[in-house]
Amino acid sequence: MIALDTILEAKKRIENYIYKTPLEKSISLSSGHSNVYLKLENQQKMKSAKIRGALSKITSLSKEEREKGIVAISSGNHGAAVSYASSLLGIKNATVYVPTTTPKTKVEKIKYYGANVEQVGSNYDEAHEIGLEMIKQSGAIFIDPCSDEVVISGQGTIGLEILEENPNIDTILVPIGGGGIITGISIAAKSINPNIKIIGLQTAACPAMVASLKDHIFYETYPTDESICDALVGGVGYIPYKMAKETIDDIIVVEEEDIKKAIAHLILNEKTIVEPAGAIGVGAVMRNPELFVDKNVAIVLTGGNMDEDLLIKSIQGNWN
Amino acid sequence: MIALDTILEAKKRIENYIYKTPLEKSISLSSGHSNVYLKLENQQKMKSAKIRGALSKITSLSKEEREKGIVAISSGNHGAAVSYASSLLGIKNATVYVPTTTPKTKVEKIKYYGANVEQVGSNYDEAHEIGLEMIKQSGAIFIDPCSDEVVISGQGTIGLEILEENPNIDTILVPIGGGGIITGISIAAKSINPNIKIIGLQTAACPAMVASLKDHIFYETYPTDESICDALVGGVGYIPYKMAKETIDDIIVVEEEDIKKAIAHLILNEKTIVEPAGAIGVGAVMRNPELFVDKNVAIVLTGGNMDEDLLIKSIQGNWN
Repeated sequence: MIALDTILEAKKRIENYIYKTPLEKSISLSSGHSNVYLKLENQQKMKSAKIRGALSKITSLSKEEREKGIVAISSGNHGAAVSYASSLLGIKNATVYVPTTTPKTKVEKIKYYGANVEQVGSNYDEAHEIGLEMIKQSGAIFIDPCSDEVVISGQGTIGLEILEENPNIDTILVPIGGGGIITGISIAAKSINPNIKIIGLQTAACPAMVASLKDHIFYETYPTDESICDALVGGVGYIPYKMAKETIDDIIVVEEEDIKKAIAHLILNEKTIVEPAGAIGVGAVMRNPELFVDKNVAIVLTGGNMDEDLLIKSIQGNWN
Repeated sequence: MIALDTILEAKKRIENYIYKTPLEKSISLSSGHSNVYLKLENQQKMKSAKIRGALSKITSLSKEEREKGIVAISSGNHGAAVSYASSLLGIKNATVYVPTTTPKTKVEKIKYYGANVEQVGSNYDEAHEIGLEMIKQSGAIFIDPCSDEVVISGQGTIGLEILEENPNIDTILVPIGGGGIITGISIAAKSINPNIKIIGLQTAACPAMVASLKDHIFYETYPTDESICDALVGGVGYIPYKMAKETIDDIIVVEEEDIKKAIAHLILNEKTIVEPAGAIGVGAVMRNPELFVDKNVAIVLTGGNMDEDLLIKSIQGNWN
């Protein structure tokens, strides 16, 4: 069960390890008709909101559970977050499974904080399958970013912070990859203000949650077109899917071109670097300003990790 | 008098209005031989450390003083900080003098938070002279960024935060423009740890403090070559000059080319946008790593405001 209580408990466990990131008004995105605020999780520890979920889970484990070791399957922000969280809490026995195709810089980043990295399978789905099999054999604790109540409760602390900082926020925009972050934020925010609207964001390259809800099918995997949003492609998590009717009021599907424009806008106007998956909400507002008239909107910028190559292309506006 | 006490009092007055910005270890700048930390004042309110000094001064004023109105002379971070601080504290009567040559975007930014902007004189020195004359006539309170003890005490709160976050820091690198920020930080840090080294940074285009100390002359103005560091050119403040022997252990003069490299490094490796004056310390460490062997170094990144044009050039590495 995920509820305000479990989120408040997660907050107590993790608040000394994370930043309470700013919620800043964006002059460039606000107008006479709307106030737009940015929740700067791209400035979070490890430059990603994922650290909240990883820490929530690891701090909830008993001594016996910690000794079994902990495992994540992710070459991205979640994998790095689990490694970092383990180092903070003195856990020596952390393993992160990544595909053999993972770039060396990402592997090094995960290793830097002490986790073992196991490169298995030629893509994420294979790494996932092999990783789960290894977990079954070892009895280690699996940190699932999208379908673990304790992880999602940790993500929910973002919702608490937004409404603590500005109780007038009436609309929160949150990217949907697996859906863990939007689920946690929504439960927190709707517990405090039942009238608040929680709007999900998906890339047009892989609108898996939109399809799941339309088809009433849990798409654990989903085909994707080419996308710059690593963190937003693939299927959805089971808990986010099951809870979507109560947690998600609407989903805006954003074109990749608009996400690219959003990254450049954030760099040039807000002077902040946001990864593609994190910038998608800004793309939605820039494309559809009419949806936010007379609203006080908070956009969650979920992360700030971006390849050098992508960063240069963003600024140059040259994506070829 | 500026002392630990006045800095602690400033902290009490301003801490609810500012961010306690992160002190983050830089993996890319640290090595087996040195630990380099970044004090991210580029993420401060208004993206500048200057807000601390402005708030310190304004919160120290009596009701009668506030009613006289407050005045700043600055088209940059200090001017915007004074406007923002005034709006936070409900002061309606704030005026910022800027040269007539000030770009419209900078004028608009200052006006956004409510200050009146007076465009006078064709350059900073003329605006300064006219502004001071107007202040004399009106009796308004002048917020001097570099030679006001209360302002400098506000800047000192950065030093408190660095050593509170990491008491092992033994070296702090701070840009020197007028010298207000390094003076405040040094007094705070040396009060806590008398052995700490405070190293100033000046651009080779305008090493005014270096010259002042060598020539034993208070250079209130100083000639400058072309520079990307708006905030670091011109003369020094009187208090910083008079106190330099006790506050500044050494000054590193950094070439403009190295500052450009530092900006790009911070964007591409640390994923953070730092204005040229703020990035100078990173340029010093990248150019002179041998000076920091076996040290725990904190570099103060004083601000994050940068023209779009400069930002694009930084990333492209094309400055022509």
